[in-house]
Amino acid sequence: KLKLMHHKHRVEYQQSMYGRYTQELGVYAKEEAARLRESGQRRSVRDRSRTLDLLEYDKGRCAKCRICTVRCQKFLISRVGEDWIFLILLGLLMALVSWVVDFCIAICLQAQKWMYGGLDSNVFLQYLAWVTYPVVLITFSAGFTQILAPQAVGSGIPEMKTILRGVVLKEYLTFKTFVAKVIGLTCALGSGMPLGKEGPFVHIASLCAALLSKFMSLFGGIYENESRNIEMLAAACAVGVGCCFAAPIGGVLFSIEVTSTFFAVRNYWRGFFAATFSAFIFRVLAVWNRDEETITALFKTRFRLDFPFDLQELPAFAVIGIASGFGGALFVYLNRLIVQFMRKQKVINKFLMKKRLLYPALVTLVLSTLTFPPGFGQFMAGKLTQKEALVTLLDNRTWAKQGIAEEFDYIGNAQAWRHPQVNVFVTLVLFIVMKFWMSALAITIPVPSGAFMPVFVIGAAFGRLVGESMAAWFPDGIHTDGTIYPIVPGGYAVVGAAALSGAVTHTVSTAVIVFELTGQISHILPVMIAVILANAVAQSLQPSLYDSIIRIKKLPYLPELGWGHHEKYNIRVEDIMVRDVRYITLNCCYRDLHNVLLTGQLKTLALVESAESMILLGSIERAQLQSLLSQQLGRARRLQYIRERAVEEKKRLSIVSNPASDDNGSQRTSQEVRFQISTEESSFSPTRPVPHKPLKPALKRPSVVERPTELPTSKNCICVHKHTQKTENPKEARIEKFYISGRNDDGDVEDDMTIREIAEWEERQLDEQVNFNNCKIDPAPFQLVERTSLHKTHTIFSLLGLDHAYVTSIGRLIGVVSLKELRKAIEGSVTVKGVKVRPPLASFRDSGTSSSENETTELHKLWDRHKSMSLPRKSTPSESEEKSQ
Amino acid sequence: KLKLMHHKHRVEYQQSMYGRYTQELGVYAKEEAARLRESGQRRSVRDRSRTLDLLEYDKGRCAKCRICTVRCQKFLISRVGEDWIFLILLGLLMALVSWVVDFCIAICLQAQKWMYGGLDSNVFLQYLAWVTYPVVLITFSAGFTQILAPQAVGSGIPEMKTILRGVVLKEYLTFKTFVAKVIGLTCALGSGMPLGKEGPFVHIASLCAALLSKFMSLFGGIYENESRNIEMLAAACAVGVGCCFAAPIGGVLFSIEVTSTFFAVRNYWRGFFAATFSAFIFRVLAVWNRDEETITALFKTRFRLDFPFDLQELPAFAVIGIASGFGGALFVYLNRLIVQFMRKQKVINKFLMKKRLLYPALVTLVLSTLTFPPGFGQFMAGKLTQKEALVTLLDNRTWAKQGIAEEFDYIGNAQAWRHPQVNVFVTLVLFIVMKFWMSALAITIPVPSGAFMPVFVIGAAFGRLVGESMAAWFPDGIHTDGTIYPIVPGGYAVVGAAALSGAVTHTVSTAVIVFELTGQISHILPVMIAVILANAVAQSLQPSLYDSIIRIKKLPYLPELGWGHHEKYNIRVEDIMVRDVRYITLNCCYRDLHNVLLTGQLKTLALVESAESMILLGSIERAQLQSLLSQQLGRARRLQYIRERAVEEKKRLSIVSNPASDDNGSQRTSQEVRFQISTEESSFSPTRPVPHKPLKPALKRPSVVERPTELPTSKNCICVHKHTQKTENPKEARIEKFYISGRNDDGDVEDDMTIREIAEWEERQLDEQVNFNNCKIDPAPFQLVERTSLHKTHTIFSLLGLDHAYVTSIGRLIGVVSLKELRKAIEGSVTVKGVKVRPPLASFRDSGTSSSENETTELHKLWDRHKSMSLPRKSTPSESEEKSQ
Repeated sequence: KLKLMHHKHRVEYQQSMYGRYTQELGVYAKEEAARLRESGQRRSVRDRSRTLDLLEYDKGRCAKCRICTVRCQKFLISRVGEDWIFLILLGLLMALVSWVVDFCIAICLQAQKWMYGGLDSNVFLQYLAWVTYPVVLITFSAGFTQILAPQAVGSGIPEMKTILRGVVLKEYLTFKTFVAKVIGLTCALGSGMPLGKEGPFVHIASLCAALLSKFMSLFGGIYENESRNIEMLAAACAVGVGCCFAAPIGGVLFSIEVTSTFFAVRNYWRGFFAATFSAFIFRVLAVWNRDEETITALFKTRFRLDFPFDLQELPAFAVIGIASGFGGALFVYLNRLIVQFMRKQKVINKFLMKKRLLYPALVTLVLSTLTFPPGFGQFMAGKLTQKEALVTLLDNRTWAKQGIAEEFDYIGNAQAWRHPQVNVFVTLVLFIVMKFWMSALAITIPVPSGAFMPVFVIGAAFGRLVGESMAAWFPDGIHTDGTIYPIVPGGYAVVGAAALSGAVTHTVSTAVIVFELTGQISHILPVMIAVILANAVAQSLQPSLYDSIIRIKKLPYLPELGWGHHEKYNIRVEDIMVRDVRYITLNCCYRDLHNVLLTGQLKTLALVESAESMILLGSIERAQLQSLLSQQLGRARRLQYIRERAVEEKKRLSIVSNPASDDNGSQRTSQEVRFQISTEESSFSPTRPVPHKPLKPALKRPSVVERPTELPTSKNCICVHKHTQKTENPKEARIEKFYISGRNDDGDVEDDMTIREIAEWEERQLDEQVNFNNCKIDPAPFQLVERTSLHKTHTIFSLLGLDHAYVTSIGRLIGVVSLKELRKAIEGSVTVKGVKVRPPLASFRDSGTSSSENETTELHKLWDRHKSMSLPRKSTPSESEEKSQ
Repeated sequence: KLKLMHHKHRVEYQQSMYGRYTQELGVYAKEEAARLRESGQRRSVRDRSRTLDLLEYDKGRCAKCRICTVRCQKFLISRVGEDWIFLILLGLLMALVSWVVDFCIAICLQAQKWMYGGLDSNVFLQYLAWVTYPVVLITFSAGFTQILAPQAVGSGIPEMKTILRGVVLKEYLTFKTFVAKVIGLTCALGSGMPLGKEGPFVHIASLCAALLSKFMSLFGGIYENESRNIEMLAAACAVGVGCCFAAPIGGVLFSIEVTSTFFAVRNYWRGFFAATFSAFIFRVLAVWNRDEETITALFKTRFRLDFPFDLQELPAFAVIGIASGFGGALFVYLNRLIVQFMRKQKVINKFLMKKRLLYPALVTLVLSTLTFPPGFGQFMAGKLTQKEALVTLLDNRTWAKQGIAEEFDYIGNAQAWRHPQVNVFVTLVLFIVMKFWMSALAITIPVPSGAFMPVFVIGAAFGRLVGESMAAWFPDGIHTDGTIYPIVPGGYAVVGAAALSGAVTHTVSTAVIVFELTGQISHILPVMIAVILANAVAQSLQPSLYDSIIRIKKLPYLPELGWGHHEKYNIRVEDIMVRDVRYITLNCCYRDLHNVLLTGQLKTLALVESAESMILLGSIERAQLQSLLSQQLGRARRLQYIRERAVEEKKRLSIVSNPASDDNGSQRTSQEVRFQISTEESSFSPTRPVPHKPLKPALKRPSVVERPTELPTSKNCICVHKHTQKTENPKEARIEKFYISGRNDDGDVEDDMTIREIAEWEERQLDEQVNFNNCKIDPAPFQLVERTSLHKTHTIFSLLGLDHAYVTSIGRLIGVVSLKELRKAIEGSVTVKGVKVRPPLASFRDSGTSSSENETTELHKLWDRHKSMSLPRKSTPSESEEKSQ
């Protein structure tokens, strides 16, 4: 529940690749590099002299060593800006984090086992220990995450997908989130719940990269580069998977499949480099810790090499693939169902919103009760941790022989699968069924957790089940001539694991991950076949788990075009574009600017030659226009106006030769009057003795209150149409005070205009023509043609990470398409499918246009009415805007 | 030599993704699909009634079967347009081709062995047999390819890279090329030369996909889609590698790395699906042929699983990686050196151009002489084929023990490595050195061949060498405590093979290919480390082999930005753009059009509002303008003009009431006159009795002769400025005849204008204003800003597959950047590197602009002079154009 709520208002679109000069790539970087190089040269000269000194001092080996280290150091410092240094650091860091997390999880799980094992005299105490431990851990994890950084909840892959799309999700890449995610994940996994490590690790690696990037920017300059950061984040995703499973290749591929739409091949080596290094260090740590003799796979299998499987077993593998496809789709559906059920039930929802930690605790209680080994857990190998279960499932011995579960020597953990009453098939089936819904439920707990590993284990169990059945069916293998090659159920488990995890995540690269996890690639063809079949089935039934979460969380992501939806080719931009574009003309006056800024919400506005020709000249950012407007109406200009007026006045006065003291006196009186008027607005200014602090009417748009980022630009902007309205709200009064304070810096001229004077002055200012000279104009915003297909538009939007594009017809601006329209069009046609595509789309377009048209005409009417009315009480436009927001 | 020559004039740029309405995605496809659906429904009704009939006829099992098959058939036909059917067919086809090619190669090699073995009584005869056989095969292959399709020469990966970039290389995807490539490749590899199969197979698979696509378009409609074809070609590349090595995953990754710049993840599954299916069928064929017992890897290794390598061996692996990096760069350099040497030597060049088959024969002779087993070949395992050599190199036994090459039981082929006099290290070193230059030389032979496999074998040999050295150094392994784990030199061979081939091709995915080829993934970390190091070294020294070939062949490809070249961020579009843009204005007259068409060579022209405002309105294709011009000056319009004139004449005549017969007579005489004038131009028209076939002056631009594709548009275009010039050339006269014939279809009005009249009429026509109503204008050509960085420009060009982009400043057109400028800028800065980047670039830009400016001013001068002169003899502009071409 909680994790589905906290994100909406932090989303901020950002156009990342095209036609912006503000974030031009690394001019700064270049200068910085040059500076570094220069200083490096200077330093090297110094160093050389120093090393010479050293050489003279003692000519032994030690000196040479020192020289060497000094040089190395120098070299390293000069190279600190290079990509590979960054990637090595990232890999190292992530390997350490992964290892430490694994270590802590192992300790937690051991502690639970130890507690459970020590209390074997009393079943009830045993149960309490078995249940309390995970409940406490999960509750702590949920609470800790909730307090420190709610963004850390969940897998993080959907968010990373959105971020790599170019959308800025705030606070998803902060240090707080990092701490919350790492500690929350450790506790969550330490509880023994069916949760995964992979998804969170992708997020942790990205966090690590973002923080490292910030840290490194203290040394070098190129770390400020936007597109470089995106590239590094993509590499970090690979590192996340790579160091989690010690699977560099699979990590790179999985991260590409899961997070990217279009992948830059030139970024490929980064992922491989960092992931390999990370996986290497991760495994070396295990060797140093004496866990392993040498570097090997995490879940090493020992299937025979000479005859891994028979050709005639392939149908069984295909069956696993297809069944996994259905299973994967069911899993995604089940997960979404649970979330939606929790959301819809108002009563439960309200209750849980109050007691946020109750839901995790309850779920954990239920799940751990069911796995209690002396209870129901005995039928589903409940006492095994996820890792142990996977190791036993991938075992290369056969559990069932000759049709019945034979008493083979179940060693160690494999014994958990044997039950005196029921045979191994029942145990496996129960394990699969129970774990299936338990995992789908567990990943809705608001703790940092992924779904990959649970699904992987379920898949392995399903594969094992099929394998054991095959082994029971063909006790001597299928191969007829010559040697007997018995069937290896472990191979089936490998296939099943890859297929089910592939189906849930809609990826093919789980195959590679499986090979790297098991250290054997002999089953490559069965695995590939099963994974592809599973993907085919799952993709035609449900979105991937990550896309499903994206939709649930309503993240601003552009959905993929489904494959084979040929009707997409038939929808044109003209069908989905918004025809009522907010634009400004080259010769418009500030009043138009003001109106446009009041009505529209878009981040950028189109600049056209004139309202008749409508030739698109470029686009201007909203903030730029706001600063233009505030400059025009700002205090500085007014003061200058006053100064000029004063000078003119003086001239006039010197001509008429009036005494200046009289004039001063009249000024003072007028000030006094103003003072009285403004008393009710600010409570403490009358008590202040300084008289020359007049109260200013401020542009009191509600958006200012809601969007504090716009404050700096509109701080000095004064709008005449609202300021005489009474402020009943003490909060607003306080905001006014905020505007008023800090205004008194340039005191050479006294601001002695009355409110009415200011209003009149502002009215006059608004009628002036806009001067675009100091305004940053993007002269080449992205343009489409009316007849560009939806398919092509989608491609271009996702290729360039666009936020919106203008539709032009021979230079004339005729519409605009933003991500929102595109998303609606795609989702609309996806749900409708087939013949009925056009009508709903057309209606959508019409209604969209007409509604916005209605809105504007309404606004215009209001505006006109207000203009014809007297100046005071003009708050209606902002009110209507408030409504539209 | 030959293979580097045949391509230049067939290159045709094509803008493939952006802003073109002419190739809008699948309107046709949609209609076709609708038609198919409809007819399918109609058919299904018919089918149902038929099945009912069948059911009544006999209600046995047989009927049900039949119904089932009928339904299946129907289903299959309706699904024939789906992607997966296409991919399955492609995979199946390619697996068959691969298997057949392999089979034929094996037979060829066996035949050579058999001949060589049978003649062991006489060394000279043996030598003759050993040498003649490959010489004949290679010469046949070269000759056959040369005659049938010279495009089939070489690897094909560079060409595929260019094609997938969006450039259309004509005749690279025809049936002829397919046949030439398959047969040529079989013969070339059957000769036993150090040539590879991979590159050509990428090309063959693409050919297969293109042909299959054409074939399938007979059934369904969506096969005409441009972007779908590109997607399918990308999948085909994966299939090529996949079915060659039975390595689906490695195939997909390798093909992505080698051919793409930006990869669409939505296309990912296609590659995996097709490659997996293809690899599967390929291996199943081997099982059915009783070569294998079951599906396994091609070069299966049997290294121990429990302790694949020691942590302390990693430095040795890293050394292999770094050395391979240098070796790979050296290989690319050597290959280019050989090609350039052959090109520069004028004498050799001329001689070889005459005797095209001599070069392959000579090279083969030299190479096969050197490998003659009783001769020098005994020191370098010369009698082993490439495959055998690889199998022995990957053997998991150790050849050298205790510091000296021990007499271990060299079984089978491994015996070739043992020599009574020299030890195994010498053999290995000689093998590596000899094969290195032999391979670099062999791949310059103009036969279909790749370089991957030879390099792979050399890498394996190098790895083996290091491995054997390590084994000799540490006879009992490095691991100290407990069990003795001896060093496995085969593992080193695997690492070496991956590293060297990765270095030559600049890919990381060779690691995956190695795992799939050997069927073992236990050495994943050493392999990854070595491959990454090799790539790092090689990429900083040389371009990849494929990029090198692209440069040698001068294919229109955009080079990659090297990594870490931060100076790229500092070059702006304004530095590289061409400021002298050819444009047309909205209110221009046909004369301007004509001039622009005469002077420029660009495929598209910018349309601006006016020469003063320069506001970019769109771009028009050259062909469109040509047809506009030809319509304006065409016969149809002239005939209409004559008709109108005749009507007016009649009116006038009816007023003045002159006799019409007199008028006819004068017409006849004028025709007679013309007849005499034109005699010398066409030799047979005077003998023809039909009098009303006047000779027409034709727009005799040399480009028309060279570019027959432009004929249809300019066929009716008559330009007055050249036609009175005498045609001394009989060839040109024949071309004129071509224009003249087939002109006499609408004979209602007699074309009775004299040449001077036509010239005057054309002059008048040229002064009219252009009507753009019927002209297809692309209203949103791609626009950049002056300050867009080179890096961003490169990204956008390669993302969208652009050919050119306009540079605008607040709507005004100020320059144009095409692929050429971009390429020059990148290559210029790549070679210069560092501080000196700006000056050469600036000079390049200045010289570029000034030269083109000079050109145009020159042209303008000429043009003005001609205008002031009399009409005849105006061929100079076209001559100068000829020079500039």
